Amino acid sequence: MTNPRRLESYVCGRWTPGSGQGQTLRDAATGEPVAVIDSAGLDFAAVLAHGREAAGPKLRAMTFHERASMLKALGLALMAQKEEFYAESLHTGATRADGWVDIEGGIGTMLTYASKGRRELPNARILTDGEVEPLSRDTSFSAQHILTPLQGVAVHINAFNFPIWGMLEKIAPTLLAGMPCVVKPASQTAYLTELMVRRIVGTGILPEGALQLICGSVGDLLDHVTEQDAVTFTGSAATGRKLRTHPAVIANSVRFTMEADSLNAAILGPDAVAGTPEFDLFVREVAREMTVKAGQKCTAIRRVIVPRGQIDALVAALDERLAGTAVGLPGDEGTRMGALASLDQRDEVRARIRDLQAAAEIVAGDPDDVRLTSGDAGQGAFMNPVLLHAAKPFEAAAVHEVEAFGPVSTVMPYDDLDEAVVLAQMGRGSLVSSVFTDDPKVAEEVVLGVAPFHGRVLIGNRASAKSSTGHGSPLAPLVHGGPGRAGGGEEMGGIRGVKHYMQRTAVQGTPRLLSAVTGRWIEGAEAQQGVHPFRKSLAELQIGDQLVTATRTITREDVEHFAHFTGDTFYAHMDEASAKANPFFDDRVAHGYLIASFAAGLFVEPNPGPVLANYGVDNLRFLTPVYFGDTLQVRLTCKEINPRENAGHGEVRWDCRVTNQKDEVVAQYDVLTMVAKEWPLPEAAE
Amino acid sequence: MTNPRRLESYVCGRWTPGSGQGQTLRDAATGEPVAVIDSAGLDFAAVLAHGREAAGPKLRAMTFHERASMLKALGLALMAQKEEFYAESLHTGATRADGWVDIEGGIGTMLTYASKGRRELPNARILTDGEVEPLSRDTSFSAQHILTPLQGVAVHINAFNFPIWGMLEKIAPTLLAGMPCVVKPASQTAYLTELMVRRIVGTGILPEGALQLICGSVGDLLDHVTEQDAVTFTGSAATGRKLRTHPAVIANSVRFTMEADSLNAAILGPDAVAGTPEFDLFVREVAREMTVKAGQKCTAIRRVIVPRGQIDALVAALDERLAGTAVGLPGDEGTRMGALASLDQRDEVRARIRDLQAAAEIVAGDPDDVRLTSGDAGQGAFMNPVLLHAAKPFEAAAVHEVEAFGPVSTVMPYDDLDEAVVLAQMGRGSLVSSVFTDDPKVAEEVVLGVAPFHGRVLIGNRASAKSSTGHGSPLAPLVHGGPGRAGGGEEMGGIRGVKHYMQRTAVQGTPRLLSAVTGRWIEGAEAQQGVHPFRKSLAELQIGDQLVTATRTITREDVEHFAHFTGDTFYAHMDEASAKANPFFDDRVAHGYLIASFAAGLFVEPNPGPVLANYGVDNLRFLTPVYFGDTLQVRLTCKEINPRENAGHGEVRWDCRVTNQKDEVVAQYDVLTMVAKEWPLPEAAE
Repeated sequence: MTNPRRLESYVCGRWTPGSGQGQTLRDAATGEPVAVIDSAGLDFAAVLAHGREAAGPKLRAMTFHERASMLKALGLALMAQKEEFYAESLHTGATRADGWVDIEGGIGTMLTYASKGRRELPNARILTDGEVEPLSRDTSFSAQHILTPLQGVAVHINAFNFPIWGMLEKIAPTLLAGMPCVVKPASQTAYLTELMVRRIVGTGILPEGALQLICGSVGDLLDHVTEQDAVTFTGSAATGRKLRTHPAVIANSVRFTMEADSLNAAILGPDAVAGTPEFDLFVREVAREMTVKAGQKCTAIRRVIVPRGQIDALVAALDERLAGTAVGLPGDEGTRMGALASLDQRDEVRARIRDLQAAAEIVAGDPDDVRLTSGDAGQGAFMNPVLLHAAKPFEAAAVHEVEAFGPVSTVMPYDDLDEAVVLAQMGRGSLVSSVFTDDPKVAEEVVLGVAPFHGRVLIGNRASAKSSTGHGSPLAPLVHGGPGRAGGGEEMGGIRGVKHYMQRTAVQGTPRLLSAVTGRWIEGAEAQQGVHPFRKSLAELQIGDQLVTATRTITREDVEHFAHFTGDTFYAHMDEASAKANPFFDDRVAHGYLIASFAAGLFVEPNPGPVLANYGVDNLRFLTPVYFGDTLQVRLTCKEINPRENAGHGEVRWDCRVTNQKDEVVAQYDVLTMVAKEWPLPEAAE
Repeated sequence: MTNPRRLESYVCGRWTPGSGQGQTLRDAATGEPVAVIDSAGLDFAAVLAHGREAAGPKLRAMTFHERASMLKALGLALMAQKEEFYAESLHTGATRADGWVDIEGGIGTMLTYASKGRRELPNARILTDGEVEPLSRDTSFSAQHILTPLQGVAVHINAFNFPIWGMLEKIAPTLLAGMPCVVKPASQTAYLTELMVRRIVGTGILPEGALQLICGSVGDLLDHVTEQDAVTFTGSAATGRKLRTHPAVIANSVRFTMEADSLNAAILGPDAVAGTPEFDLFVREVAREMTVKAGQKCTAIRRVIVPRGQIDALVAALDERLAGTAVGLPGDEGTRMGALASLDQRDEVRARIRDLQAAAEIVAGDPDDVRLTSGDAGQGAFMNPVLLHAAKPFEAAAVHEVEAFGPVSTVMPYDDLDEAVVLAQMGRGSLVSSVFTDDPKVAEEVVLGVAPFHGRVLIGNRASAKSSTGHGSPLAPLVHGGPGRAGGGEEMGGIRGVKHYMQRTAVQGTPRLLSAVTGRWIEGAEAQQGVHPFRKSLAELQIGDQLVTATRTITREDVEHFAHFTGDTFYAHMDEASAKANPFFDDRVAHGYLIASFAAGLFVEPNPGPVLANYGVDNLRFLTPVYFGDTLQVRLTCKEINPRENAGHGEVRWDCRVTNQKDEVVAQYDVLTMVAKEWPLPEAAE
């Protein structure tokens, strides 16, 4: 047995030990001391100031793509060191499978944000949000919502069950937004978080101050938060309430996101009777959710809502499956379920089971009788799965209120689907519930019935049996969080999670000045004409570069020729009587695709040049019918320039407006092109 | 003098007087009693239950378009009765111009929501949010975020300054979301709110329970809010803090939106020196913001940030303008500024001016010397505008902290633009600030510098002088709210404000079942082939109706013919060497517009039928180059059906996927069509 490691906080650019005695943290499965944790003596106001002053301006000076590249480099560096984290993770009681969720799930989340940042955000420092809102008829006054990074620090206070994922799923969107982080892991498993932060700092990839770590209590840190800071919390509702009502949080309207207790439900559809694939999937899913991480997941299934007639079959099937779950030392190959986080945690779970027993009876497992395949039940926080049954769930308040944070679930019957929905709602807000059914009507009724009470709902059936990521897995692209008891928070959800760390502001003004703020050309803003803009590389092209083309008159012959050439002989183009009978047209009209094709013929510069490809069109609307004899003209304006990192080109978005001889807008759309950064192309470009 | 009217609450379907003595409300300008207010004896738990049970299901059964039509009918009915509201509004001290903002501004906001609901939302009961997220490679498992209405009640606690707008700007998005409302106006001006609710109830347009009104204290109402309710508050920070930390709000994570004190700034750009149009606009805007509603606006300019060299000129110009502001009885034609809401309110403003005097000196006006063109300074809450000057604004804490909620502003100097930005930020979160400049660099630096601290920023300049809606006007399409001191809330912002009353839920499952939940066809969901879907009216068409077309091979002749016909002879289509030098292509490629045109030729059904028009294309992406000899095929699938209320047709969105002979996706887009509800068209359709 070695001396326990003394954890340090990484604050103000230094690894700093606490000045106190500290608290000893023990291995969940063996009871051996692993580490000592203590943050006494830290200057928490200085921690916040360091994040704001040292790192904030540096992060905000980077573009979204630069920050995304930084996250990618960091994620790859951490993945390369994953075995070290797996080894340390064993102390938490987690098996390798449990560790995968935490370690590779966490790093994977960071990499997903890196990828989404490059694909879904512009290579810019601010975001526009929604469309330009014209506020005057003469286009002299408009508005655009923008998002800018908050200028404070995000304080992330995390739970013990996912010491790595819990950190990474929060810092990835925060850093991508351009905001520095202070992470405070729950003490019990902080050694694993501390190890990873050591490796992160060691890479030198993040600007100094972008990530600080507090091992131990946060002391008076919250007294110093301001209106530009954000606080997130994952953990117990009681602690969450205290933090949420902290005077500085309230006085400064600090953004506060909470993810707390959640009595997630799984509903077996009335069609999913024993013998169906959905019944088997349901059994497997409930058992898995009870045993992964020894049931210590905020998303685990706590309430199992089942057609009355299926209760016996389900309990029998679950009992068999749970009885076969080998509980033991997390590092042993045969172990299916490791230990709870600590002996205290096990005592807590046992106490909560006693609360549940007021409303339900145990039908499988015994909380006090520990049966192991390895390890010592006296030293390690082991426990076998416990299944309860609440025969009268509408009277069983405890099963909808008490969360036993371990391998514990309660089965309860319903008589019709309405009842199943109401039972799920009785959780009063959950992170996730699931319904197992192959019937679209059941899926629709249950999902829409429970949706207002949930941040996520999973439908399980035979078709997704192999591909489903399962009830319990939050995913980076999807919202994680739930209303009410679950805390009312929202994390991740792809780029939504990035916006949480940004301020939305409506900016109003004349388009010329608005355009200067957003870096995008806006209708009504100034434009420059001169050399054909397709002759300009990204080095030369400017927002507002504009081409007004020659005109072209569309003839009956053009339309008929196009119809026969393409095969599009739709009656509105070809048949006068039918066109006139159509409520939208007064006569035969030109094809929309003909208008767009002629428009391209008018605006294209045919010679080899920096415009490499037209990769798409957005928001094309045909606004005025084009009749034979109408004369078209195109105004093409450079609207947005998005140079790619690590490539010889970038995306350019052009505003394309096609008008007729009466100056009516016939078609309006965005043309999307790839344009070279330099022209001629350098040798061996790409 | 008549007896004051006894206000009643409209709760549980009945107009109900309070059982107590009540409080007498007086005319702001004359001191005459106007009304008595009292809510003693109301059963507040029953009020919430009535909203949830009587109105919630009815509102949720309506589609967005049906709710929008309801709001339009209500807005028009109220506008027809506006003179009655103007007459009552005089009691609040508001001039007709002030009343316009409240009455027609409020009704206009409701009508804007009616119009946005029909234009920007589908004719459905739930919303999808964001794109489908594919979660498996074989498309057997995907996710879609949806928004469903909360199943509780929205409690709107409003301020005294906008008794009508304050109610309507909140209930419009709430009702559009499908959620019932309880409105509690501030007592001082509740008679005007009560009058309007009487007229609203009188129209019979809203389902019973959709709008309830509490005149007087809300008693123990907040004790009964649950996780499905929402609470909004506009008013003082002190009251807001109390409500936000109410035990039931905290315990149930009730959505709480607050809009409180705000020390909004106006910045004069360094270019906007005396003599420029921007200087004159700035003077006019500051004076207007100080005097409209006697300065009782959350958005009024409190801090006037000016280049040091312009201070004297500005103070002189403002002094002159303010001195010419006729203060008197609000109903008199010559009156430019009416009374404050009450004598108490005037005492409050005078006390806050004394606080400001610790850090600033009065340079125009005298809080205690009231000069009127009509009315009695002893009876009415009159006050002339007061301008202060803080010579050392970085040391003048009070001017950045104290809100005098009346015709009061403080001028302060800055030396460089950084200082101006920091001074604006010292408000620690505001609803709105403005910058007056004609210089794009100044606009960019100031707007991006202050944006994280603001919900709205206005740029004023000569070009928008006539069209600008002004610093102080929240607009329905724009976010209203601000971080920090302003309360951290967000209201309106167009459809964003509707989503505040809905729960976002990530739904995961196999596309077939996901599609049943969302009512939209999703890639991987089942599709039905048979009769050509263009032959089906909305009465027959189903989500998933699909056409797989014949194939067409694209030849060199096709491409060259198209190029010469349209004029689009871009080198990548025409010039082999240049095409090969292009990093995206291996050879000459077909035009994107040719691909889309041939695709239409493949999928169109030419004969007269229920498809009336192709009105646009969304999200067109060319994903794989098409070379000579490639063979295209189209799969067209009915994705979304959106019947229009009060029209003979609706919008149908088609998923259009073009593949080549290797089954690679060449192009992917949505085709947008108008389709008749019946076919043949009924006589005199439209």
